[in-house]
Amino acid sequence: MTKISESTVRRLSHYYRVLEEVAAEGQKMISSHLLAEREGITSAQVRKDLSYFGSFGRRGLGYNVEHLRTEIRAILGLDRRWKVALVGAGHIGAALLAYRGFGDQGFDVVAVFDSNPERIGQKLGDLVVQDIAKLPECEGVEMGVIATPVRAAQEVADMLVGAGVRGILNFAPRKLRVPEGVTLRNVDMTMEFESLSFVLSQTRARPRRRAGE
Amino acid sequence: MTKISESTVRRLSHYYRVLEEVAAEGQKMISSHLLAEREGITSAQVRKDLSYFGSFGRRGLGYNVEHLRTEIRAILGLDRRWKVALVGAGHIGAALLAYRGFGDQGFDVVAVFDSNPERIGQKLGDLVVQDIAKLPECEGVEMGVIATPVRAAQEVADMLVGAGVRGILNFAPRKLRVPEGVTLRNVDMTMEFESLSFVLSQTRARPRRRAGE
Repeated sequence: MTKISESTVRRLSHYYRVLEEVAAEGQKMISSHLLAEREGITSAQVRKDLSYFGSFGRRGLGYNVEHLRTEIRAILGLDRRWKVALVGAGHIGAALLAYRGFGDQGFDVVAVFDSNPERIGQKLGDLVVQDIAKLPECEGVEMGVIATPVRAAQEVADMLVGAGVRGILNFAPRKLRVPEGVTLRNVDMTMEFESLSFVLSQTRARPRRRAGE
Repeated sequence: MTKISESTVRRLSHYYRVLEEVAAEGQKMISSHLLAEREGITSAQVRKDLSYFGSFGRRGLGYNVEHLRTEIRAILGLDRRWKVALVGAGHIGAALLAYRGFGDQGFDVVAVFDSNPERIGQKLGDLVVQDIAKLPECEGVEMGVIATPVRAAQEVADMLVGAGVRGILNFAPRKLRVPEGVTLRNVDMTMEFESLSFVLSQTRARPRRRAGE
């Protein structure tokens, strides 16, 4: 298959959110222009993104909201439920568990682990924090979230891989190694701040535009 | 100026991280191909992204690492420090304050607010949590972070705007209204999970490819 970039997938997630909104408003059709608007991209980019997966729209008519929503939902793997193990019962872990949006989209945190004896046995949300030593016994988990201190992150990643997860979301600010066949995504909060500082900087000093392409 | 999309800014942040790495390894020049690799995009996209801001590379030679790093640092507004106010001293707020990366990139959380009497007066990191009622008196703050429950988010956004912030990072899963001239970014953790579920789904069932464009 064509390699789909992370940027494309991110845009699919955005399209999906727009489609959910307009569906809730009872809208039947949507133009690529409207889908493009929110991301500040061109409608050509929208059509290109969607063309990787099939031909959904009709020239001059746009896209059928319900159909496209169902298709993107399937493309993003949101038409099923995923079992997630969370490692690290600190602030990030607690914040993630408290966030109700995950369950709504099909991501079920089924187990929480930590190595801190003071946390093991405590309740976090509806779950009881388990000893990290029990992680290898955890069955059927497909995704792992690493919300541990940096020094533990690689070891936890190795344990998650050993437990059979195929995808890892890493909040620890360290590059991790995972074997082929396991997908790793790093969450870097600083990038969200940079998106703001970029805009705030640009509104003071305009960027030079010496060359176009 | 040309409207720069959020996707472009996100890629600039990625390029900046790659440049920091290769600079640390002592590398002097870098190709657009190598810059493109990590995001799974084309080198043409890299050249296009950078062309918005000037002409940095030389055909066949690539980019000077140190020069490009300095330029992107300035473009992203990372060549100065930003004062940030955090509203909400719960799990997300605590996780953000504990994350050392922000300070390294120039984002200084200078004040923390909450409305919960049990939290006001408590220490969170190096700061003492202040009564949200004091927010209007907070001077010189340029960015605000909303890490409150959903029901409080719009009111807090209004207060931050009143206090003069120009950029808001919102962790509450609700659409907020801000006046023109104020930039709002919503952090949606579910999207990170969707990036994983996309890949994990694709490796089972290949996407249909009925039409190209």
